[in-house]
Amino acid sequence: MAKKRANKRASGWLQDPAGMRSRILAAATREFARHGFGGARIDRIADLAGANKRMVYYHIGDKEALYLAVLEAAYAQIRQAERELNLEALGPKEAILKLLTFTWEYYLRHPEFLSLLNEENQMGANFLRKSKRIREMRSPFVSLLSHILKRGAASGELREGIDPIELYISIAGLCYFYQSNSATLSIVFGRDLLSRRAKARRLAHMTVFLLAALRPA
Amino acid sequence: MAKKRANKRASGWLQDPAGMRSRILAAATREFARHGFGGARIDRIADLAGANKRMVYYHIGDKEALYLAVLEAAYAQIRQAERELNLEALGPKEAILKLLTFTWEYYLRHPEFLSLLNEENQMGANFLRKSKRIREMRSPFVSLLSHILKRGAASGELREGIDPIELYISIAGLCYFYQSNSATLSIVFGRDLLSRRAKARRLAHMTVFLLAALRPA
Repeated sequence: MAKKRANKRASGWLQDPAGMRSRILAAATREFARHGFGGARIDRIADLAGANKRMVYYHIGDKEALYLAVLEAAYAQIRQAERELNLEALGPKEAILKLLTFTWEYYLRHPEFLSLLNEENQMGANFLRKSKRIREMRSPFVSLLSHILKRGAASGELREGIDPIELYISIAGLCYFYQSNSATLSIVFGRDLLSRRAKARRLAHMTVFLLAALRPA
Repeated sequence: MAKKRANKRASGWLQDPAGMRSRILAAATREFARHGFGGARIDRIADLAGANKRMVYYHIGDKEALYLAVLEAAYAQIRQAERELNLEALGPKEAILKLLTFTWEYYLRHPEFLSLLNEENQMGANFLRKSKRIREMRSPFVSLLSHILKRGAASGELREGIDPIELYISIAGLCYFYQSNSATLSIVFGRDLLSRRAKARRLAHMTVFLLAALRPA
């Protein structure tokens, strides 16, 4: 019975290899986000993807390859979404605020991305270090931000001398920490930080905070 | 031999129960920060503390009690250090900047605190939720911050209407994310974010950023 099911799956996979690859990646993302690298199980991933272990190995590779593919896909996805914001078409201030709102909402919609990053950092980024794709994704984004900041400084809309990487980390940090640590912070401060109202208040706070921080002196 | 050693340890412990308790807590902090709740082993903790399992149970309790004691002690330690800053004796702007610098440096000196928080958030703060001590630690700190912000708004030094909890989360987020995610960020941006120079640049960026964000409109 199990074999029959596997055969049926295998024939579906032959008809749609790209679909199978993306189903495996989606299943692996969920598994690694939930259980970390150490706790993740290839058979659970195969099961979730409607595949078998052999197909997982065939399409992507062993557990390490699978984990790296998940990480790379997660970064590719957020970089792609950032590109689609078309920040270069906006005024400098609007562009930065749009990046803030986007980052905030993207993290809210993708808690698995935060879990993956936490896990990878816990492991000293030893997997990400091996990735060539990550390096290729870097530069367009940093130069885009850098360009926006220069335009803003030239027009007098933004303060001069803001480092694009520091700014990006600050925007991400304002959003990320609130969300990834919302469970402990909610207890420490006696507020449900993930209620609708609390989230709206947070975005409002960050918007005012960031706008003020970018004003020319 | 092992028994003899344990007896010797046991007699030391009878002479200094508080010292033993704090050695167990220190060992447990290290173990939980490194291996998470699931991966931590009581015998490694006992070993590291120069104790045995029975003494760990006697002084603190089972694994859950030990983990909660570690979390509570970690929070108590940072709250205590924050109190010792004597922020109420400073001008409002200086007080906030001092809190920023302190938070940045405290996290740098206590990477185990960041690991513990990451782990506890991964578990939905289910342990912290049971703590009464955490609730008692909350209010003095929030009211202190709130008082500083009110003084600053009244004197015209700081912008009005800043929420003390949002501000605290923002300050913590600027520091925390940079450090807890420094491994992946260093790769993504091709910069060693933990070099001496990079850390100095980060603190300078955050200082300018925060000062600008708090300026009256």
